[in-house]
Amino acid sequence: MSAGKARNLQLGFIGLGRMGLNMVRRMLEAGIECVVFDTHVEARREAAGFGATAAESIQDLVARLDGARAVWLMLPTAVVDVVLDQLVPLLNAGDTVIDGGNSHYVEDLRRAEALSKHQLMYVDVGVSGGVWGRERGYCQMIGGPESAFKRLEPAFAALAPGVDAAPRSESRSGDPSPAEKGYLYCGPSGAGHFVKMVHNGIEYGLMAAYAEGLNVLKGANAGKQKRTADAETAPLERPELYQYDFPIADITELWRRGSVVGSWLLDLTAAEMARDPGLNSYTGRVSDSGEGRWTAQAAIDEGVPVPVLTAALFGRFTSQGNDLYANKVMSAMRHAFGGHQEKTGDKS
Amino acid sequence: MSAGKARNLQLGFIGLGRMGLNMVRRMLEAGIECVVFDTHVEARREAAGFGATAAESIQDLVARLDGARAVWLMLPTAVVDVVLDQLVPLLNAGDTVIDGGNSHYVEDLRRAEALSKHQLMYVDVGVSGGVWGRERGYCQMIGGPESAFKRLEPAFAALAPGVDAAPRSESRSGDPSPAEKGYLYCGPSGAGHFVKMVHNGIEYGLMAAYAEGLNVLKGANAGKQKRTADAETAPLERPELYQYDFPIADITELWRRGSVVGSWLLDLTAAEMARDPGLNSYTGRVSDSGEGRWTAQAAIDEGVPVPVLTAALFGRFTSQGNDLYANKVMSAMRHAFGGHQEKTGDKS
Amino acid sequence: MSAGKARNLQLGFIGLGRMGLNMVRRMLEAGIECVVFDTHVEARREAAGFGATAAESIQDLVARLDGARAVWLMLPTAVVDVVLDQLVPLLNAGDTVIDGGNSHYVEDLRRAEALSKHQLMYVDVGVSGGVWGRERGYCQMIGGPESAFKRLEPAFAALAPGVDAAPRSESRSGDPSPAEKGYLYCGPSGAGHFVKMVHNGIEYGLMAAYAEGLNVLKGANAGKQKRTADAETAPLERPELYQYDFPIADITELWRRGSVVGSWLLDLTAAEMARDPGLNSYTGRVSDSGEGRWTAQAAIDEGVPVPVLTAALFGRFTSQGNDLYANKVMSAMRHAFGGHQEKTGDKS
Amino acid sequence: MSAGKARNLQLGFIGLGRMGLNMVRRMLEAGIECVVFDTHVEARREAAGFGATAAESIQDLVARLDGARAVWLMLPTAVVDVVLDQLVPLLNAGDTVIDGGNSHYVEDLRRAEALSKHQLMYVDVGVSGGVWGRERGYCQMIGGPESAFKRLEPAFAALAPGVDAAPRSESRSGDPSPAEKGYLYCGPSGAGHFVKMVHNGIEYGLMAAYAEGLNVLKGANAGKQKRTADAETAPLERPELYQYDFPIADITELWRRGSVVGSWLLDLTAAEMARDPGLNSYTGRVSDSGEGRWTAQAAIDEGVPVPVLTAALFGRFTSQGNDLYANKVMSAMRHAFGGHQEKTGDKS
Repeated sequence: MSAGKARNLQLGFIGLGRMGLNMVRRMLEAGIECVVFDTHVEARREAAGFGATAAESIQDLVARLDGARAVWLMLPTAVVDVVLDQLVPLLNAGDTVIDGGNSHYVEDLRRAEALSKHQLMYVDVGVSGGVWGRERGYCQMIGGPESAFKRLEPAFAALAPGVDAAPRSESRSGDPSPAEKGYLYCGPSGAGHFVKMVHNGIEYGLMAAYAEGLNVLKGANAGKQKRTADAETAPLERPELYQYDFPIADITELWRRGSVVGSWLLDLTAAEMARDPGLNSYTGRVSDSGEGRWTAQAAIDEGVPVPVLTAALFGRFTSQGNDLYANKVMSAMRHAFGGHQEKTGDKS
Repeated sequence: MSAGKARNLQLGFIGLGRMGLNMVRRMLEAGIECVVFDTHVEARREAAGFGATAAESIQDLVARLDGARAVWLMLPTAVVDVVLDQLVPLLNAGDTVIDGGNSHYVEDLRRAEALSKHQLMYVDVGVSGGVWGRERGYCQMIGGPESAFKRLEPAFAALAPGVDAAPRSESRSGDPSPAEKGYLYCGPSGAGHFVKMVHNGIEYGLMAAYAEGLNVLKGANAGKQKRTADAETAPLERPELYQYDFPIADITELWRRGSVVGSWLLDLTAAEMARDPGLNSYTGRVSDSGEGRWTAQAAIDEGVPVPVLTAALFGRFTSQGNDLYANKVMSAMRHAFGGHQEKTGDKS
Repeated sequence: MSAGKARNLQLGFIGLGRMGLNMVRRMLEAGIECVVFDTHVEARREAAGFGATAAESIQDLVARLDGARAVWLMLPTAVVDVVLDQLVPLLNAGDTVIDGGNSHYVEDLRRAEALSKHQLMYVDVGVSGGVWGRERGYCQMIGGPESAFKRLEPAFAALAPGVDAAPRSESRSGDPSPAEKGYLYCGPSGAGHFVKMVHNGIEYGLMAAYAEGLNVLKGANAGKQKRTADAETAPLERPELYQYDFPIADITELWRRGSVVGSWLLDLTAAEMARDPGLNSYTGRVSDSGEGRWTAQAAIDEGVPVPVLTAALFGRFTSQGNDLYANKVMSAMRHAFGGHQEKTGDKS
Repeated sequence: MSAGKARNLQLGFIGLGRMGLNMVRRMLEAGIECVVFDTHVEARREAAGFGATAAESIQDLVARLDGARAVWLMLPTAVVDVVLDQLVPLLNAGDTVIDGGNSHYVEDLRRAEALSKHQLMYVDVGVSGGVWGRERGYCQMIGGPESAFKRLEPAFAALAPGVDAAPRSESRSGDPSPAEKGYLYCGPSGAGHFVKMVHNGIEYGLMAAYAEGLNVLKGANAGKQKRTADAETAPLERPELYQYDFPIADITELWRRGSVVGSWLLDLTAAEMARDPGLNSYTGRVSDSGEGRWTAQAAIDEGVPVPVLTAALFGRFTSQGNDLYANKVMSAMRHAFGGHQEKTGDKS
């Protein structure tokens, strides 16, 4: 990123949560002028401490921006439209709004169209990086009018990890492309959040793949457990094959070096397991937050099979207890055709 | 079945559980002479009440059989080898043992080979029918030497439902084949239990298909529920689409007539739901009992994809709580990359 | 159904395809007066031959109906709105439109609201029965205003299979309820098509469960096949376990009597296999037609896990070739990390 | 790794394929004396060029080793037992055999027991690293007698990537453990290959997660395609939502920096796509090679749900055409109940 270009850029920024605040810091450090607002006064104060201009209100924020304004929203999905309702009337033709939250891309299409009636541009940015972005930089997937992308590129570059964050791919040479720096113009409105949505869908699948595999390692001592020999318990034909107590925390550490399954998620898992090897701080209720669902629904619209991604998604639903009624139905059937009584006591 | 032929058949029968006893009754009614044994004296006495000859011991049972003996075992899987160890030394070359339990077909192959060294024949019979077999007849899938099948055919025919149990298939004409009567010679040793294994694998899939669908109906009031708007809860974009409280018991009854999803399992479900519409007598722990597992493992050996059958199987594992560790791993990951705290309170 | 009540009912009917025509016949036989229209003149003529009054146009159809009109649409999904645009302006407050096609229930909600502005009632009916409905009767899942359902009940009863189509469930007694006759009021607008949608979702799961199981039987001769011992071919450790050539057509026939997996779908499969045991008339491209997709998408909105139903759906997508790109990605990965070359020649 | 210790170690090594040869080089560079054999003379010659002692035969190899011998096998699974039959009679009590190939851990248990009768030790090592191991080092999962592990540790350390291959996990401090260097003693016989088996099972899941997600991106232009409006084609309700032509190769590059889904597999994918963006060098037939199957089968024995791992495995089976018969069965059913004809022309 050219610091010179960044120095000429001024940005409004609404939403100073953990992620927003870190993003503002990164942009300030790159020389971008940030006028910020958040309903929490302390967050504004903290941003001001890093060099941002704290506005008292959305109106104040808009007033403090010059020329063709650009306002970045970093808000919970549910709040975006509320803020847009306040913000849009304050803007002028040619101004740009950026939604950097986790909106559904379908909302982007609706909003882009609504804003275009006011000659406003709408840019959707899927941002990955979570609590680590301050340190690692933010991977950004960007959709909307390409001209808006071009004008804002110094901000994206400032937030991005930069090319040095990973070794260059073999066939890539010359000046690093934006993708190699960690941000990419993905296409027209919605493209950014669409790519981010699929990114998260993949993330669900990756997480479940590790989790299932580690569960198989965990279960490798099944042959040591006493097993009732009743009709409700499937037999274990060769218990001598399942006599292992694996050092799972060490195995996750091991795989970080030289193996095919190395990844950032594995790095995190190994660190977490080094800290809490028994994972006793967790109960196993896994939330899901929209993108995994939308990815599956989009795949179905497209006619694209995503058995792994949906298996991962449904595993989360099940961890939330949502398979209960289906299981009761099956118990009822088993009782009806075989006189089977439910076995008790071993449901965790 | 020709009653005349059945009248000439004599059978030893070991194992007078609920299913065994009913099978003996059906054979007695067809004129087959049954010499029976069970470790429970009352079961022997009950069988004698129906006309069976009750033996005092396995030795006694063998002694009471004439000519080329045939001994049918109807025992829990775990006991079959124990009984065979006692029985085999008492038999003569040319005698036949029938295993009508739920053995893994791999065991059949081993046993058939072991018995063949004593010139004994081993017949494996997968029997479906459960607690309803007394009334409906037993569907039998048979493996082993074809000559043994032929000799025992009157017994299979006596147990089977008979051709009138279902309308004939359009292209079938002439004398009904055994398959049309409800028993079938499926091939050499293990063939009977292999087919029964797959039968049960299919059963798991069918049950889960209904259960999942009914769960979707049950969840159709999701839009009525208050939903917290936090980052750990996926948003429901259009709650107005999920405002239904469906009469599920009536729907299962409805589908029994004229619909594509009519089945015997649905008949049972409708009956069960008429009795207990809320399924309050069940907690949703669904046992699995071997065949579903073996089907999946055989499919994997064959390289045949069985995503539906394994999804059904894994649903049962999960209902037993066996996804717990995997879910903890995912919670740990989410905590590590996003600072997510597990949400509590809504796990059933 | 009371024939007396049916005799007082008059119905407009638009759409005389294979299914529509048979439905009209069934209603005529019950004494319901049917005024029909279809763009195909022959279809109108055929209906007239059965006793229907054939209209020349939609306008003509409406003109020929007395009192509070009821017009039943039996049309391809894509055409419903087109016909409604013509029909609605011709109707009067208090008239009723019935959509008996395979509409998405979300469309029902939209249409019901639009029609209510004209004081028209909209009834959505999911109809199962296919080409067999003429003979078996039609299973009907009904949504909309309950008063409209009541008024039209003689038509639903005429179309339904009737209580004798299946043995009564044990706990049911007294006068048979509508559900026991084969039609059911499921709830407000959209309820009928919602239940039908889930019905079809279940159907996908049931079909796939049978298909996978039969494929495992088919693959049971895997041990007989010569297997290359290269790094691209998974070894079959115990080929002696897979030496079976099963009589699959006979097995499907067998399971129709006395087994747990008996169903109408199995009846059809057995009949089809008796006719064409090798299934040589099929290439294995399995279409999907909306309901399976919508069921999965609704389940995801609800947070309800449906792994079996989606596995079945994705199997269809895959049969259409839609996994191609994903597979290329995996081949590229395997090449990159292991130098693996794709194996050729055995992809069907 | 202490070079001093390594200098005292002497190793026999049988199997100089691409992987074996590179492993020998790495050990030679660490000062380990290697006596090598392969049936291909050139491979022996090449190893000799790097400093290994080339033996003329297995007998010769054994003769050239001093003291307590250790012989590492790096062979195709199918050949291990053949070589063991020749090797074992040549060894003395106290000698050790290492199997570094991709054996099923069940074979390890059998072999370890057989060798123990000759007072030989058997060590099983799962090795990940593929064609990249020469450069990155080899991640090693080790099972067998712990004393044998200890004695051979310098060899494992020489092969391993070393602690610098990844940043240390936060909670880890002090002298790096073996796991942090890239090798780990996992437990008694079979433990090494068990962990490697699960490692590969996870790998299948990870690969499929990426592949499915990229396929959803690829399908995001579905709304641009002309769609026939027949009963065999599911409707796309909102084509305007699927108008994207995503730059997929750039997206895989993008995700390598700062995103949650970064991994070594993604690095490879991005490199491969930079080289061949359309993946035109692949047809999409994905082999599977044993470990994925064994992982699923072990999970089923354990009662552990692995829906993601099996979905990935079944996707490979399907890419090999093994869903064909199941699909024909479903087409037959659809024809039977709905008169549906298979749609042709769009199966790839």
